[in-house]
Amino acid sequence: MNGSEDRLLAWLREHLGEGHHLGDDVAFLDLPGAVALTVDQQIEGVHFRPGIPVEVLARRLAAVNLSDLAAAGARPRAALLTLATPPGFPHRRFFSALTAALAAAGAELAGGDLARAERPAFTLTLLGGRWPGGRWLRRDGARPGDRLWLGGTVGESALGQELLARGASWRGRACLPPGLALPRPLAAAARRAIARHLEPCPQLALGRWLARSGRAGAAIDLSDGLARDLHRLCAASGVGARLETARLPFADGFLPLATRLELAPERLALGGGEDYVLLFTLPAGVSPPAAFAATEIGRITRSRQLLAGRAGAWAPLPALGWDHLGGAEATGSRRPSGRA
Amino acid sequence: MNGSEDRLLAWLREHLGEGHHLGDDVAFLDLPGAVALTVDQQIEGVHFRPGIPVEVLARRLAAVNLSDLAAAGARPRAALLTLATPPGFPHRRFFSALTAALAAAGAELAGGDLARAERPAFTLTLLGGRWPGGRWLRRDGARPGDRLWLGGTVGESALGQELLARGASWRGRACLPPGLALPRPLAAAARRAIARHLEPCPQLALGRWLARSGRAGAAIDLSDGLARDLHRLCAASGVGARLETARLPFADGFLPLATRLELAPERLALGGGEDYVLLFTLPAGVSPPAAFAATEIGRITRSRQLLAGRAGAWAPLPALGWDHLGGAEATGSRRPSGRA
Repeated sequence: MNGSEDRLLAWLREHLGEGHHLGDDVAFLDLPGAVALTVDQQIEGVHFRPGIPVEVLARRLAAVNLSDLAAAGARPRAALLTLATPPGFPHRRFFSALTAALAAAGAELAGGDLARAERPAFTLTLLGGRWPGGRWLRRDGARPGDRLWLGGTVGESALGQELLARGASWRGRACLPPGLALPRPLAAAARRAIARHLEPCPQLALGRWLARSGRAGAAIDLSDGLARDLHRLCAASGVGARLETARLPFADGFLPLATRLELAPERLALGGGEDYVLLFTLPAGVSPPAAFAATEIGRITRSRQLLAGRAGAWAPLPALGWDHLGGAEATGSRRPSGRA
Repeated sequence: MNGSEDRLLAWLREHLGEGHHLGDDVAFLDLPGAVALTVDQQIEGVHFRPGIPVEVLARRLAAVNLSDLAAAGARPRAALLTLATPPGFPHRRFFSALTAALAAAGAELAGGDLARAERPAFTLTLLGGRWPGGRWLRRDGARPGDRLWLGGTVGESALGQELLARGASWRGRACLPPGLALPRPLAAAARRAIARHLEPCPQLALGRWLARSGRAGAAIDLSDGLARDLHRLCAASGVGARLETARLPFADGFLPLATRLELAPERLALGGGEDYVLLFTLPAGVSPPAAFAATEIGRITRSRQLLAGRAGAWAPLPALGWDHLGGAEATGSRRPSGRA
């Protein structure tokens, strides 16, 4: 029992406390009947560039998965991890950050599998239960006449990704690309965009409110771009939508920064992806509490067309965004993201 | 909705029938309260060599995960898959083989995540429930005086792996290394060893019997080698064991074939790994039904020492076998396995 794997597992058991069975092949959980399940992978060179600190990778892995549970109206309960890493990977730093991020969301790390590999790759499976008094949120519940809402700003993550592609880095905090001189407010907006891209914030509280409100139609989280994810929501619901582009919510400084970097803001917002805010529908006249700072951006239509623009000037909205097999389509979005 | 990912997902929905939500970010399942959870990964170059047919990879991925549920006494229910694959990967062939293997074990593919990568990598998460009238099997339930049992033969998978390393291949069936001339019975044994290594058979029926018998002490499946997995079972249970090496069950032709290939049979059996048979304990006087062809190989002791040998000639048993981070330790076992 003195292999490096067994040593790591012994450390994990001590670190996580009793009741954990990491290293066992199977974890046993008591769940309240119905579960929501999700799995996501993060692979170096595909989902992120080499050099990102492992703590950031761990929190990002947790966040993108928790965002799926948020969109399902689920309460995070348990996680399973697989880790494939090259020699020298700082497992303990990774696990400390991951378990802290999961614990903050109410979930425990219940099991996993370790392997060696040339490039780091992580897979996280999450299990969620229902919130008390809540029901699941699905992407197929949108009805004609519903209003379309966004839980936060869009495009900022893609802007951060672009800055990382241009040489920005993360050394404890976001650092701008060498040679990019920006006025102070734009530099601050750029650093926020980099942080937003690397460490998105899953909207669990908004998901809980939607699950318990009994009013939500459909919900999805924005991972592959507003346009593509809206196409998916509408296809699942058998409806169309009209998206008022003038209503799209942007982060402070986003528009001048995009202009300064010669990027089209609407393209970033519609095709950029990885914003990890909720896109959801509510009946007309129903609004989320103001604290969520959600924005109404359009409405669901009986016609299955997806249109973007404004009254009197609608145009078809193509399914811009990220295709996990084909890559980016008709969009400025690029992967891998980030470089430290 | 015309990206390659959306096309694949549409095919999967049709192929799998209604009720499946592959491509959704979250799957919803109704489970009977308690679940057993397991996750395993298979990475090209780490767990298998390039060139293995994707159907074989899919069945192997299912088998090694189902084996964990077998050892937990769990009934397979649902699976989540992540797939990271290079361009041109034959997804449909892979999914057809995987869903067939899962369905044969009573499980459905409930969701997943797709990505591109240079090398194929797969992660499968499995959820199991309790068998009617059954209880979970754990690795920490062995008691002094219990008898130690094996659900099948050991060492054969490592022998098959060695043959693959020496140039054996899989082209619809096992083909021996070019230049290796064997008498007919040994050639047949060699082909069985290659097949055993590439497509292990999870012992779900034995796991169900153990779960429902109410008599099982501890159980674990042999993935990393009999010696290492026995160390784990004993460490979890706070006991030791005496393993009678003369009782180790071998496949037909295993001993002469190992001799012919100049490999030590005991080393293959104790340190080889990936046999995917159950190692379990029962009170003295209790035997599994003969149909399972299980073999009593020793007994659990109060002393925490692990000894191997025979009465009057016991020697300490080192934790030979596979370390997922450090690699093989003090054993002839090697990865990656297989080459087509």
